[in-house]
Amino acid sequence: MALIVRKYGGSSVASLDHIRQVAWAISSARDKGDRIVVVVSAMGGETDRLLKLSEEITPMPSGREQDALLATGEQACSALLAITLESLGHRARSFTGLQLPLVTDNLHTRARIIDLKTDIINRALDEEITPVVAGFQGVSESGNITTLGRGGSDTTAVALAASLKADCCEIYTDVDGVYTADPNICPRARHIEKISYSEMLELAGLGAKVMHVRSIELAQKYQVPLVVKSSFNGERQTWIVNEEEIMENSIIKGVTLEKNVSKISLIRIPDRPGIAYQILEPLADAAINVDMIIQNVSIDGYTDLTFTIPTTDLNKASELVDKVAQKIGALEVKADNNIVKVSAVGIGIKTNPGVAARMFKALSEENINIEMISTSEYRISCVIEEKYGELGVRAVHHAFGLDNTEHTETG
Amino acid sequence: MALIVRKYGGSSVASLDHIRQVAWAISSARDKGDRIVVVVSAMGGETDRLLKLSEEITPMPSGREQDALLATGEQACSALLAITLESLGHRARSFTGLQLPLVTDNLHTRARIIDLKTDIINRALDEEITPVVAGFQGVSESGNITTLGRGGSDTTAVALAASLKADCCEIYTDVDGVYTADPNICPRARHIEKISYSEMLELAGLGAKVMHVRSIELAQKYQVPLVVKSSFNGERQTWIVNEEEIMENSIIKGVTLEKNVSKISLIRIPDRPGIAYQILEPLADAAINVDMIIQNVSIDGYTDLTFTIPTTDLNKASELVDKVAQKIGALEVKADNNIVKVSAVGIGIKTNPGVAARMFKALSEENINIEMISTSEYRISCVIEEKYGELGVRAVHHAFGLDNTEHTETG
Repeated sequence: MALIVRKYGGSSVASLDHIRQVAWAISSARDKGDRIVVVVSAMGGETDRLLKLSEEITPMPSGREQDALLATGEQACSALLAITLESLGHRARSFTGLQLPLVTDNLHTRARIIDLKTDIINRALDEEITPVVAGFQGVSESGNITTLGRGGSDTTAVALAASLKADCCEIYTDVDGVYTADPNICPRARHIEKISYSEMLELAGLGAKVMHVRSIELAQKYQVPLVVKSSFNGERQTWIVNEEEIMENSIIKGVTLEKNVSKISLIRIPDRPGIAYQILEPLADAAINVDMIIQNVSIDGYTDLTFTIPTTDLNKASELVDKVAQKIGALEVKADNNIVKVSAVGIGIKTNPGVAARMFKALSEENINIEMISTSEYRISCVIEEKYGELGVRAVHHAFGLDNTEHTETG
Repeated sequence: MALIVRKYGGSSVASLDHIRQVAWAISSARDKGDRIVVVVSAMGGETDRLLKLSEEITPMPSGREQDALLATGEQACSALLAITLESLGHRARSFTGLQLPLVTDNLHTRARIIDLKTDIINRALDEEITPVVAGFQGVSESGNITTLGRGGSDTTAVALAASLKADCCEIYTDVDGVYTADPNICPRARHIEKISYSEMLELAGLGAKVMHVRSIELAQKYQVPLVVKSSFNGERQTWIVNEEEIMENSIIKGVTLEKNVSKISLIRIPDRPGIAYQILEPLADAAINVDMIIQNVSIDGYTDLTFTIPTTDLNKASELVDKVAQKIGALEVKADNNIVKVSAVGIGIKTNPGVAARMFKALSEENINIEMISTSEYRISCVIEEKYGELGVRAVHHAFGLDNTEHTETG
């Protein structure tokens, strides 16, 4: 008798009909003898509806009130699913983050889990009641409702699976797993049967929308086997597991395109110790995530510094950088949101020195100019002009032999 | 510096524009120096939307899950109002019933308050933060979310006013107070400036929709001065206070029409001790509220018993009564939902013996047959045929001199 945490995303519970299908699926899993703990997102579109309401009032609502507002979406959905399960003759009980409690720090709208009590869940399971947990939300130590950031329901599910020592955590979504690239961009993308936590982390961090980055970190840390499935098409799935459990590894597992990227360049700044820190500190203070950083070779004691940030933070970042630029006497500040980032991800990168060269060649053969490069153990990323983004992904995907040529699934 | 609890009903917070107007009103009260605690209902229509969702799943959802679902309406509204207050530069903080906590028994969908902690509210007030409390909801001692029944936000507001020893509790709604009759039925109805708790209790219990019965009981018990006002028209209001505070009292304060009434008659039942109990006990067990009860004079050891119940419980009640009728050998059971109840309410009734006769005369002059009569200290009620309901109200209203003949407000 397995203990399984099942997480259903917004598209899986978008309507009462969807919720009914989910309830049937849970019901049949229970009939097979499994013990199921369910985590739900808000009904598809509900979080956006609530966000729109608060945005109509003010562009900058306080995090505390924003969280109290958004948390209602998951609460309502968990109650509706519990009602549906009960209508099928199964005992069920909904729980909010505050009721568990799932305790977080007090960083509203992007809180991190500090502690998760499972007594209430275990008691329900002992009484053969299916717990239906409202995902995405928690409560701070001072009793305020918090949320874990977009996609936070994945994190709720993995944290529950870890705390309950569940056999696995199933993530139900509108796709049947992870692909070597976004099939909308790259029609020859292949379905992946097994992927390592590390690779999945890179993919998720680079714009693959299947799972929330933090939930994968948590799954890796607590060794929770994860599986991504489609709610409405049970044929295929992707397992996310330890590297060692993957028998046959390809060098590159997938190729991603990240669009929410802009770059800022400071031209002709004094090349002295601490200058980069002086420029980037105000951005860190404003919680703006600086990604790639490149500093040119120094000429006559002057250099150029370029870095990338999320486009959503471009206005704020430009403002902050302009101030520093004046202070340090930079010649010019240039901002560019006309770029994208193409990345190749795979655990084979660290052991195959030719991988980067192969990627650069693939892009150059399509006459795509590479503006910035960064590499890590598991990935190579190139910033290129926005208009070449999709072409770049297809070129790199092809170059690493990922294309599905036979229209079969080879994983 | 007064401490005031302000309650805003669903129609007062029906849209973001309404919420903005409410926020302005609170803001100007604060600027005058008053300390304000706000209680809100769900945005107008939201509770019905949520109820419809659960009804689409099953006609009989469990109370626990229904409550968890419905409580989201008030929670979302309290957060939206707090965000709006903050956008006007006022500090504000929303609280759910669970956060206060407002502790109730575990009778889901109609829970009663056991305990109400105000520490969190007092702390907010001390920091000059306006607390915005989600009405209608609480938490049971076992930690489940409960609701106080329709109109329960009034009860939340009065309970808070009592616990905080507030100077008064203001109920904001879509009408500017209480009238001598429903102006839609009786165009000559007059606005009432002051009414006693006891009279208001009777009026509310008899179908006047201005306030929740339990909230008036609570206000009377804890001597909380209540005032009913329109959210969007500040001219008039009705004070609900102690009898002694009303200088000039009319015999009859108001006339009501109750439509949700049906009657059941058991014909020719044995007239022996305990028979009424035997018939009515199953109804009490099913929580069906039996109102007027009439037993005919006994003839040959047999009698007839007639009683009224809410029409919404008629099917259930008929079923239960049919069973008993068979057991005790009643000749026949008759059910009739073609009736209404017209009532006259006023503290002058107990001291003016001619009042009942005057009411019967008014109805008979319109050729309206009275089917059942009941009286109490503060009211006289007559059951009449449904089609005469509105006419009956106008006739009684006129007979007691309540008509507004001069189109002025004489209270």
